[in-house]
Amino acid sequence: MKKNIAIAGAGLVGSLLAIYLLRRGYHVTIFERRPDMRKNQAGTGRSINLALSNRGLHALDEVGLSDDLRAVAIPMHGRMVHDRQGNTNLQPYGKQGQFINSISRSNLNIVLMNKAEAMGAIFHFEQRVTHIDTERSAITTASPENHLATYHFDGIVGADGAYSAVRLDLQLTDRFDFSQAYIEHGYKELHIPAAGQFTLEKNALHIWPRESFMLIALPNPDGSFTGTLFFPFEGKNSFASLTTDAAIRSFLEETFPDVIKLMPEALHDFNHNPTGSLVTTRCYPWVRHTTVLIGDAAHAIVPFYGQGMNAGFEDCSVLNKLLQRHHDHWDAAIREFQQLRKPDTDAIAQLALDNFIEMRDLVADEKFVLRKKIEARIHELYPDKWVPLYSMVTFHENIRYADALQIGRKQKEIMDDILAQPDIATTWPSLNFEQLANRLHRP
Amino acid sequence: MKKNIAIAGAGLVGSLLAIYLLRRGYHVTIFERRPDMRKNQAGTGRSINLALSNRGLHALDEVGLSDDLRAVAIPMHGRMVHDRQGNTNLQPYGKQGQFINSISRSNLNIVLMNKAEAMGAIFHFEQRVTHIDTERSAITTASPENHLATYHFDGIVGADGAYSAVRLDLQLTDRFDFSQAYIEHGYKELHIPAAGQFTLEKNALHIWPRESFMLIALPNPDGSFTGTLFFPFEGKNSFASLTTDAAIRSFLEETFPDVIKLMPEALHDFNHNPTGSLVTTRCYPWVRHTTVLIGDAAHAIVPFYGQGMNAGFEDCSVLNKLLQRHHDHWDAAIREFQQLRKPDTDAIAQLALDNFIEMRDLVADEKFVLRKKIEARIHELYPDKWVPLYSMVTFHENIRYADALQIGRKQKEIMDDILAQPDIATTWPSLNFEQLANRLHRP
Repeated sequence: MKKNIAIAGAGLVGSLLAIYLLRRGYHVTIFERRPDMRKNQAGTGRSINLALSNRGLHALDEVGLSDDLRAVAIPMHGRMVHDRQGNTNLQPYGKQGQFINSISRSNLNIVLMNKAEAMGAIFHFEQRVTHIDTERSAITTASPENHLATYHFDGIVGADGAYSAVRLDLQLTDRFDFSQAYIEHGYKELHIPAAGQFTLEKNALHIWPRESFMLIALPNPDGSFTGTLFFPFEGKNSFASLTTDAAIRSFLEETFPDVIKLMPEALHDFNHNPTGSLVTTRCYPWVRHTTVLIGDAAHAIVPFYGQGMNAGFEDCSVLNKLLQRHHDHWDAAIREFQQLRKPDTDAIAQLALDNFIEMRDLVADEKFVLRKKIEARIHELYPDKWVPLYSMVTFHENIRYADALQIGRKQKEIMDDILAQPDIATTWPSLNFEQLANRLHRP
Repeated sequence: MKKNIAIAGAGLVGSLLAIYLLRRGYHVTIFERRPDMRKNQAGTGRSINLALSNRGLHALDEVGLSDDLRAVAIPMHGRMVHDRQGNTNLQPYGKQGQFINSISRSNLNIVLMNKAEAMGAIFHFEQRVTHIDTERSAITTASPENHLATYHFDGIVGADGAYSAVRLDLQLTDRFDFSQAYIEHGYKELHIPAAGQFTLEKNALHIWPRESFMLIALPNPDGSFTGTLFFPFEGKNSFASLTTDAAIRSFLEETFPDVIKLMPEALHDFNHNPTGSLVTTRCYPWVRHTTVLIGDAAHAIVPFYGQGMNAGFEDCSVLNKLLQRHHDHWDAAIREFQQLRKPDTDAIAQLALDNFIEMRDLVADEKFVLRKKIEARIHELYPDKWVPLYSMVTFHENIRYADALQIGRKQKEIMDDILAQPDIATTWPSLNFEQLANRLHRP
């Protein structure tokens, strides 16, 4: 008999998981709190974009969607760093032309929903999850008129994001570890419109690192860029301190001189776009009886590694493999899933927090550039022995996040040693690179 | 005009805070989820006891209740350590006869509720908090028949414990940091009945430290002791591994030979008493608009320092002082309260976790005993310069928890150095104790 699975959340991860499960021959029902985003396209306005990289692409490939989505994504071959004087410096992601992909979140979501629906998924929109009875494997939802309905399933998946309603019910069960931790920075979207064409280099992720904060911009297919300012909530330079139009304008003009002239609506955006907050959530167990959490519901992370969606897609791929290995024994597969996956999602959560400091403080720093240069040389000479951390996370989907974190820490120790040498800025080309590469693999 | 304050929770902290506020001339309304415990005395059976120490006594003293409560408490002058052979060793809490007090939780709670009620507090029992509207300073509660009622107040206090409903609403607001972390051990109460008299030394806290777990017992006025087994949920020796009566019986007899013969109902208790879990919760902010969290609702800790109630009572004392200093400006007082108090409650949370390891692993350990002996000597010679950590936390209510934690860490560094010396077990009496005491105060 076909398994009946409920998924809470028709977002990116919920929709992709539905496709995986439908391919396995399951019945899939999706409950989504919001209205059907496909029916409200005209009103959404600006597109928010995400960085799709190898882990996400690998999962999309497994369900036959990667080619379609590559076609609508914009490759970004490196970081374009903008300093305070408006000078730019392109730092390529790799010597072999590696790239990540700027893709519209809503377009990607629509592709996944359409595919899931075409394969037989049943969507219930505007149905808010009010209760999960894990023992009875039952989900209760409420309509906008607050009509309650309870459904029974063979399994329930909480794919309902960082503020998961499914997880909130699990949190009230005994011995459920949970944390939500906000960083001191918020974010605000600032639009960079097209001017008949791209006004900045199209195929790059743009960064304006300013030590305690930063602006980034990702390209959209229409020639515009979506800029995002990551900025402290409180303190000297902060959302709280910029209270007048004049203060905002002069802050933006002094801090981002080269791009602010491309943003005619910057002041309006600053005043009218909401200030988002950034949270890391961790929890365990992910499983109670037949209910399992996945994606942001299990492990919401900050966006600074561009891995939130990629990690969620990788979750789907891993769960699918485990269902295969366990001959579709749901309970066994979800239990192995949480055990196998938890160290990896803890690792990417930490890496994402660490990378914020790297992006805003260090990308423009001389020592940082030297460090990257030496690492790139080791990698070039001994590509199998030394892969830079960013590449392991972003381009090597066969390396687990937890392993990448551990290897990255060892690399950092080695590089800290090297950079502590006097005159390293001039002497580095004569380092024994083979020895350095081998040192990484000493137990 | 008199301030109208709502308190969620008629437990120890809610009831004591009510008394403080009533003394300030406030109107106080208390909403309690459970029925009135005073009307259900016959059925409660065994008393659960707590260790009341100086911080808690200081607060009770401020509201004029400490003498009454001292009269019904049982002083415990030290730890009586029981080894596997049944040998005992009394470790006094101090040379000046310092003691902590075993007191019945329910009796203490009843004294506080009676006092608050006599002073004019209005109690609503069996009213479950369903929503806090912090912006409107409104609390919504549900009766057992699910009738909802909403009340407005000048201020709302969440004193509703580790699983606070008030905090759950705050958790859903933006930028609210929260964590709940369970330890791997659970606990189970095992009764040691009176046999016309106390069957163990009355004026001691009894400990059976067994490295990965432990049993403790506190005296009750009726001659009985309440034993509590702290034991892993899973693993070789665990609640999960002891599945038959024979296994439970032989485990208890082999592990606690001297006390098991005083516990005729041990097997029954083990099988029928619930297994409790132990959680540490941390959150911030404690304040939203006029709503504030206090006690376990703000900072639930594990019981191994005997400070959960004492910390909650100290909260009340601190908040009362701040209301005084701010001339009863509620918003200002609760904001300073959270800022002032958070580092202290974080510190006691950590100390409580650390002390579990000390109690179960170390109390019976030779090196531990030597460490305590040397520390006691330093303290004896230089009582103003070196106060052992346990004493700072338990007997010195004028030392903040955060300071105690920091001083304790420095003491540990110094003592680690000392104990690393060869032959320290024999040479220690000739140490330069003055130098050691002074080292603690070097910057």
